[in-house]
Amino acid sequence: MKYIRILLFFAFVSNAQIQKEQLNLMPWPQNINLTTGTFALSKKFKVNITGNPNPRIFIGATNFLRRLDGRTGLFLEQSFLTKVNESPEAELQINCVRNGKIEINEDESYKLTITSNKITINATSDLGALHGLETLLQLLQNNSTSYYFPTVEITDSPRFTWRGLMIDGARHFQPVDVIKRNLDAMASMKMNVFHWHLADDQGWRIEMKKHPKLTELASDGSYYTQEEIRNIVKYADERGILVIPEIDVPGHASAFLTAYPEVGSKVSDGKVTYEVQRNSGIFNATLDPSNPKTYQLLSEIFDAVCPLFPGAYFHIGGDENNGKEWNANPKIQEFKKKYNLANNHDLQTYFNMQLIPMLKKHNKRLMGWEEIMTENMSKDAIIHAWRGTNEGLSSGGSLIKAAKSGFKTVLSNGYYIDLMLGVEKHYLNDPIPKNSILTPEEKTRILGGEAAMWSELVTPLNIDSRIWPRTAAIAERLWSNEDVTDLNSLHKRLKMISFRLEELGITHLRNKEVILRNISNNQKTAALNDFSNVCEPLKIYTRNGGGKKYRMHSPLTLFADACTADALDVFDFDTAVNNYLENKSQENQILVTNFFKKWITMNSDLIGLSSNAPLVQPLLPLSKSLSDLSQQLLLVIEKKQTANPIILNDLLEQCNSKKNADVELAVYNSLKKLL
Amino acid sequence: MKYIRILLFFAFVSNAQIQKEQLNLMPWPQNINLTTGTFALSKKFKVNITGNPNPRIFIGATNFLRRLDGRTGLFLEQSFLTKVNESPEAELQINCVRNGKIEINEDESYKLTITSNKITINATSDLGALHGLETLLQLLQNNSTSYYFPTVEITDSPRFTWRGLMIDGARHFQPVDVIKRNLDAMASMKMNVFHWHLADDQGWRIEMKKHPKLTELASDGSYYTQEEIRNIVKYADERGILVIPEIDVPGHASAFLTAYPEVGSKVSDGKVTYEVQRNSGIFNATLDPSNPKTYQLLSEIFDAVCPLFPGAYFHIGGDENNGKEWNANPKIQEFKKKYNLANNHDLQTYFNMQLIPMLKKHNKRLMGWEEIMTENMSKDAIIHAWRGTNEGLSSGGSLIKAAKSGFKTVLSNGYYIDLMLGVEKHYLNDPIPKNSILTPEEKTRILGGEAAMWSELVTPLNIDSRIWPRTAAIAERLWSNEDVTDLNSLHKRLKMISFRLEELGITHLRNKEVILRNISNNQKTAALNDFSNVCEPLKIYTRNGGGKKYRMHSPLTLFADACTADALDVFDFDTAVNNYLENKSQENQILVTNFFKKWITMNSDLIGLSSNAPLVQPLLPLSKSLSDLSQQLLLVIEKKQTANPIILNDLLEQCNSKKNADVELAVYNSLKKLL
Repeated sequence: MKYIRILLFFAFVSNAQIQKEQLNLMPWPQNINLTTGTFALSKKFKVNITGNPNPRIFIGATNFLRRLDGRTGLFLEQSFLTKVNESPEAELQINCVRNGKIEINEDESYKLTITSNKITINATSDLGALHGLETLLQLLQNNSTSYYFPTVEITDSPRFTWRGLMIDGARHFQPVDVIKRNLDAMASMKMNVFHWHLADDQGWRIEMKKHPKLTELASDGSYYTQEEIRNIVKYADERGILVIPEIDVPGHASAFLTAYPEVGSKVSDGKVTYEVQRNSGIFNATLDPSNPKTYQLLSEIFDAVCPLFPGAYFHIGGDENNGKEWNANPKIQEFKKKYNLANNHDLQTYFNMQLIPMLKKHNKRLMGWEEIMTENMSKDAIIHAWRGTNEGLSSGGSLIKAAKSGFKTVLSNGYYIDLMLGVEKHYLNDPIPKNSILTPEEKTRILGGEAAMWSELVTPLNIDSRIWPRTAAIAERLWSNEDVTDLNSLHKRLKMISFRLEELGITHLRNKEVILRNISNNQKTAALNDFSNVCEPLKIYTRNGGGKKYRMHSPLTLFADACTADALDVFDFDTAVNNYLENKSQENQILVTNFFKKWITMNSDLIGLSSNAPLVQPLLPLSKSLSDLSQQLLLVIEKKQTANPIILNDLLEQCNSKKNADVELAVYNSLKKLL
Repeated sequence: MKYIRILLFFAFVSNAQIQKEQLNLMPWPQNINLTTGTFALSKKFKVNITGNPNPRIFIGATNFLRRLDGRTGLFLEQSFLTKVNESPEAELQINCVRNGKIEINEDESYKLTITSNKITINATSDLGALHGLETLLQLLQNNSTSYYFPTVEITDSPRFTWRGLMIDGARHFQPVDVIKRNLDAMASMKMNVFHWHLADDQGWRIEMKKHPKLTELASDGSYYTQEEIRNIVKYADERGILVIPEIDVPGHASAFLTAYPEVGSKVSDGKVTYEVQRNSGIFNATLDPSNPKTYQLLSEIFDAVCPLFPGAYFHIGGDENNGKEWNANPKIQEFKKKYNLANNHDLQTYFNMQLIPMLKKHNKRLMGWEEIMTENMSKDAIIHAWRGTNEGLSSGGSLIKAAKSGFKTVLSNGYYIDLMLGVEKHYLNDPIPKNSILTPEEKTRILGGEAAMWSELVTPLNIDSRIWPRTAAIAERLWSNEDVTDLNSLHKRLKMISFRLEELGITHLRNKEVILRNISNNQKTAALNDFSNVCEPLKIYTRNGGGKKYRMHSPLTLFADACTADALDVFDFDTAVNNYLENKSQENQILVTNFFKKWITMNSDLIGLSSNAPLVQPLLPLSKSLSDLSQQLLLVIEKKQTANPIILNDLLEQCNSKKNADVELAVYNSLKKLL
């Protein structure tokens, strides 16, 4: 009893007033008005819903309760919400004026008010209310013994209406549970568009009841059944997320044409065959735009696929058609002449335009990667801008061009998370940069953006660590005010969001340990973990040797798969180095030299592990380089010895090697500063 | 180059001859003949299949290649196997004489021969070949740079034909991915029966197309669609596993009767209602055996459910009918008299007998928990023995009685893994103990056993840690020779098997960290991990306060959920204590006192954590007790001080408390030895 009394006392005194900057909210809301006071959470806490919402809010509120249960360990008494006004006395009152529609430009705003004894979420639609619940969960605070919310008034709504994530389920198939947990994570970051890439050279992933050949011959047995697709669409709907399917045509069609070679563009000598690709890359297989059968088949496919997706958009890909098969086929060249199509771009526009009525029949608008943007393309099409400096174009240039040309458009250039770049680059990539010269009307054509997770190098084991937490920063860019750009705040909040994503079922942290354990051959993983915190996978598609090194069945259980962008120790080491260079105090020196000592020990531990772990061998050269340089720098810094600059520089450059284990040492630039 | 040469030299010298005892095989094969030599694994390694197998072997062999890829990081060239004799030159040759049938008493034997340049698996059926592939994967060895198999000849077959795992998908719903990963794990342990408990008081989990009320009113939205069930049955078939569905009747029927109260046994006063249970326990809701509508409805349900499961068995539960509703209902009492049914047992037998033809229509035999075993019960029924000393009966007695009475029977008493007992108890629980007096014919009636995972206290987050690795020991008991009982060998091998299960997708290790991180409020988890390694969840249903404390939506993210049976440090500490008591050498003393020091530090770290982690608070009393006693024992052992035995004993007994955080200190018995 005495013990409990002390605890209660503690609880009372330590509900300290929190500052706005201390809140780990993401995406950052438009307006936050913190007041003095707290709302104490108890097991009696209940939710009540009023108004005319879509029933998805009952599921959302029930999930909210279970997440609150799980995080706090409180045995909240309320079980399942199933209708309006079940608990009029509840402390949390949610009012939704009307049923939210899962579509672009829907009202997603909400107002969250927390007073010391009542919480209200008011929203036009249940979609806004769902966002309000996510904000509320992020506001939860605790002292040593209990949980509470700060009193606050938040009004919030998104800057852009299109806040998407694309997952490529075609190259490496991603099962239903991977998709579902990522939908949960998206909803927690207030994202509202899931773009599902469902067919590519490496596989056709949709069950086709009237065209079973597509999965029989071109899926290796891995595809989504129509029921699974409907189930995922429903799951997404319950979380306020629109699902947009993509069937990539006329290129990226190796799998499609493995099943239906007769509509391919290869010159026919009686019997043409295609095969499902096992490597990555851009392949020649392209649908024949001059063959009426092509359109007949596509029309049948759309008739089967469109009804699975109630949303108003259908993505037809349209990217990276290299034109080789078209150029080599005299019949197609003749067709071009006959229809006055000057080049392959025009031919592809002809092809694309045939698809528009097929989709319109199902009330769908055509969306495609930016290559579909030609002069004669219908302005009804949505342009998905993806190319930039990597493709020799200006960053975000296609988006601006699309908006200026009268197209509605969505940005993915700068949001390619498979490039394995650091989070800051994505975070600062604004769809409408401050210096852009666009009319207000042109600006409204920029709907938002989409993180793009291509799956050449991801499996269910490592995909989450490629998507998260970086995509949370993209979600903030698309939701929050354009002035929310403080990088220190981003890093601080992202650290907590990363834990919250695991709480929700994302596996980016837990699966890292699984991969490291395998590499260690089930020995201790501490040294591997230390090394993974300074190594990052090779960036911008340099890992995969032009798509030829890894095949779709290659093991993705290697060290590079455990490493991530934004390796954990890089920021801290760089800060330590900068501080030390500014002020060589004993304290600042120790912060730097501790890293060196850690890396020297780590290297010797890795050597120890390697005697019984073949997968550790490839790491040793780089680990040795880091350890060697650390030893030299320790002598220089601690013992004040002078070192031969040529030798030091040589050691440094060995740390810049990208030849080992598909990783690079992400502390190289910080080390360089010390020389 | 020099570096590589050294490594090659190392590889050459270190392919040391392994001893039989060093192999981490589980279940232990019947015959192992190790010879001198090794088979070196390279990326050229291929598999070829000959004979007349079921196509499941192609999937099994492809999965085998991917697991080998993943573990070794070798880029094996072979992608997908799809037909016989694809690679006649392959180093691994698998021959299956015939298509294996997924049924009891099928031939599952195999012969695995590894020579220095060739591996062969010969089996009557593909089912044996799948087992052979699992053994081969377990045989993989490595030196510092490469992987190899020892040369060996293994002939193997199971001791019992029924080696099952039951998962309760009714109380806490377990989604498809949980079931699938557990089927993978079962197959890796050569288990062949998945018993799927699909309906209970807390939920009806099967989609019913003609009886949608069952899921609409009694599933809270969580159920398996018929397509998902078919998909799981196929997945199991591909792994050589028979799926046996269970619909528990006439008791355990709260959910059933929530949808169809008109066939319940409650005395009707016009309108009877039932409700889905949120707690655990034994409830009154029971089908009315006197009502023809009951049988009509059951017959319709079996007509819908039986075709989903091609196997020859259907489990109708039949347990724990408390008879209260029957006793209170005059109409039912009258019915008993009319049909000369002396008691409720006879009435239930009457009920059960009505189900036999309904199942026979679908070529299914009735199976039920042991309560169905009455004098008049058909000998065609399979008796599932589950009660024992916890229920005031002799351990395994019902099994023997069933066999002697002419029933085929399966043992689960002693294999209730939800009791949270240590692995040794389950491991040494033989279906046919050496002293049993059974005729050879009676012995053949004992088909085998089943681990039983009831789901009152498990969610997808923690269920794997309740099933594994203990179920691997049960699998060995059911497969291997009865003389394979060495506990040291069990513990040694289980440690490696535990890692291998994670490799396969089981989450018992990775999810522990997730739970601890939540408890720590995202602070460091080391101290919590140390404490979890000496704590075990309360055993034999004492955790859940008679089923009333936890509800089906209570958080299972607490410390007890991170803890497991067989806490990791318990065995090591006990060994240290025993050695020290036998010989008080300095060395032996340090091994003991290091534990005390660790626990003292741990306690102070937990106090530190608790200032910002409410969920750590409940652990402090027990952690303090352990720390206090450790301090005293340190003084006694290190400083040779004498301590007041009353005080010491008092501190010890505080370590025996079961009042905190639903856990007990599993080192208590070892500590007691020191006093």
